Amino acid sequence: MAPIPNIKLSSGYDMPQVGFGLWKVDTAVASDVVYNAIKAGYRLFDGACDYGNEVECGQGVARAIKEGLVKREELFIVSKLWNTFHDGERVEPIVKKQLADWGLEYFDLYLIHFPVALEYVDPAVRYPPGWHYDGESEIRPSKASIQETWTAFESLVAKGLSKSIGVSNFQAQLIYDLLRYAKIPPATLQIEHHPYLVQQELLNLARHEGIAVTAYSTFGPASFREFNMTHASKLAPLLEDSTIKSIADKHGKDSAQVLLRWVTQRGLAIIPKSSRQETMVANLNSLDFDLTEEEIAQISAFDRGIRFNQPSNYFPTEFLWIFG
Amino acid sequence: MAPIPNIKLSSGYDMPQVGFGLWKVDTAVASDVVYNAIKAGYRLFDGACDYGNEVECGQGVARAIKEGLVKREELFIVSKLWNTFHDGERVEPIVKKQLADWGLEYFDLYLIHFPVALEYVDPAVRYPPGWHYDGESEIRPSKASIQETWTAFESLVAKGLSKSIGVSNFQAQLIYDLLRYAKIPPATLQIEHHPYLVQQELLNLARHEGIAVTAYSTFGPASFREFNMTHASKLAPLLEDSTIKSIADKHGKDSAQVLLRWVTQRGLAIIPKSSRQETMVANLNSLDFDLTEEEIAQISAFDRGIRFNQPSNYFPTEFLWIFG
Repeated sequence: MAPIPNIKLSSGYDMPQVGFGLWKVDTAVASDVVYNAIKAGYRLFDGACDYGNEVECGQGVARAIKEGLVKREELFIVSKLWNTFHDGERVEPIVKKQLADWGLEYFDLYLIHFPVALEYVDPAVRYPPGWHYDGESEIRPSKASIQETWTAFESLVAKGLSKSIGVSNFQAQLIYDLLRYAKIPPATLQIEHHPYLVQQELLNLARHEGIAVTAYSTFGPASFREFNMTHASKLAPLLEDSTIKSIADKHGKDSAQVLLRWVTQRGLAIIPKSSRQETMVANLNSLDFDLTEEEIAQISAFDRGIRFNQPSNYFPTEFLWIFG
Repeated sequence: MAPIPNIKLSSGYDMPQVGFGLWKVDTAVASDVVYNAIKAGYRLFDGACDYGNEVECGQGVARAIKEGLVKREELFIVSKLWNTFHDGERVEPIVKKQLADWGLEYFDLYLIHFPVALEYVDPAVRYPPGWHYDGESEIRPSKASIQETWTAFESLVAKGLSKSIGVSNFQAQLIYDLLRYAKIPPATLQIEHHPYLVQQELLNLARHEGIAVTAYSTFGPASFREFNMTHASKLAPLLEDSTIKSIADKHGKDSAQVLLRWVTQRGLAIIPKSSRQETMVANLNSLDFDLTEEEIAQISAFDRGIRFNQPSNYFPTEFLWIFG
């Protein structure tokens, strides 16, 4: 396997351009999946409080380290702050809990998961807390501004709890505002990014500001099929699209590898997920060929500005508008 | 003429639902245009530092008041903070200058024009300052956060310099963040809004938060034809569209009145501009009929998420992304 290239972050640290996404990795298999992914060559793992599997993922890491497959400093572990912990004084305690869950002393990167501050839910009451205050229907905003949360994030770096800090699901105006007051600028921005949702102007902003971008849900609607979203099921699956397939055939690759290369060749990081060892390896080996400029343009032309990961797609509420 | 309905703002004040937009009103005619608009029945005037015509608009107001056509307290004068005055300490002085230009003691509503803080340009050097620091090519951000600017806006209310305060060209995430720290919530949000750019989720947010929405550029590409925007000239002019025309015919109205009614019937305010007396009156008289639900849906179905008023349409720069 070719070595995984690094992206140099504004924090000074290197981030592997290909990582493993832990969203929807079931707790029953998470430990083995992480262990096997390390075996397959993955070094970056993209987790989050909200994924509900940090204890198990940490067990997979511990086993791999114990068996000498990898050292902690060779790994790049990412986690994310959930919405209910945005209040400044809640940030450090929850990071420490998440680190304890992982069995780690520091994260390599810690992100604000969504720019949505919700009222605190005690982890002893419910964890992960999800969107609803009472676990059923009530959504309660908190009064924490992004500046309050970001200031607490900057303390995490000072205290060595995370090497780098960043944001996820932020749009341009909020990033511009964050850059006005940030003492440490966000090292990365993680966003939904696939041919149906290119967000070129947001990418331009990130490039201009030296913020590395990590793309999630690279295969588009495929990542969301299980949520029965009307527009996800109406759209042609990118992995079976004939244009993508014919590009893949030309390069002797599969459609997934083409979609991943479309992202990495444009300088972004990817975090595909797979529970099958064969697919894990194929995703990791998606960097050893180059698409032509014309092929990149062909794929970019799928853009329809269609976003799948927005709260309104999970439940009908006032949060309809969070990306509006 | 039927009386113009008011929208009750969260500040407690009433805002006329139909007003007169002062963007692109030439200084040579601005005084007469405002005077004639008051004669035609307009009470709300939507101005801005950036429009470069506040002195002349104020002259039109003064003449109408002097002639007894209207009293100051019957008018609703709106102005906007330009980007180069976002630093907290710059806000009050520039508002006082703008009030002096208008010949007024207070604004009824003062808005942050764009969520883009730029470095201060002394009005003695260049006024209005525009986007570029040097008037030519250099764009210099300032370090003012929206919170810093908004805190200064709240002081304007305390000092009686503006009755209500609001924002313009803000998207959902930034509004949500503003609502975390605002002691006075924004009374209004002014946005580009026409059948090609409905922004329904943003409207849902505004309704949920009690923020009145003012729609600008209601006729869509027609407002931007003169800037030679490729996508504006490629799109069918809404005023000549056969669907809009046939709806207009059914109601014995013209297309402009149908487009305006599509906005006001959904609860938003409008600020059309016209230099012709006949059109002024027609726009004002766009409230005395109701579209059917089906007609509203037909017009809403034009939505393509196409925005015309973004900096990237005026000049190619790093500001490409401001709405990205």
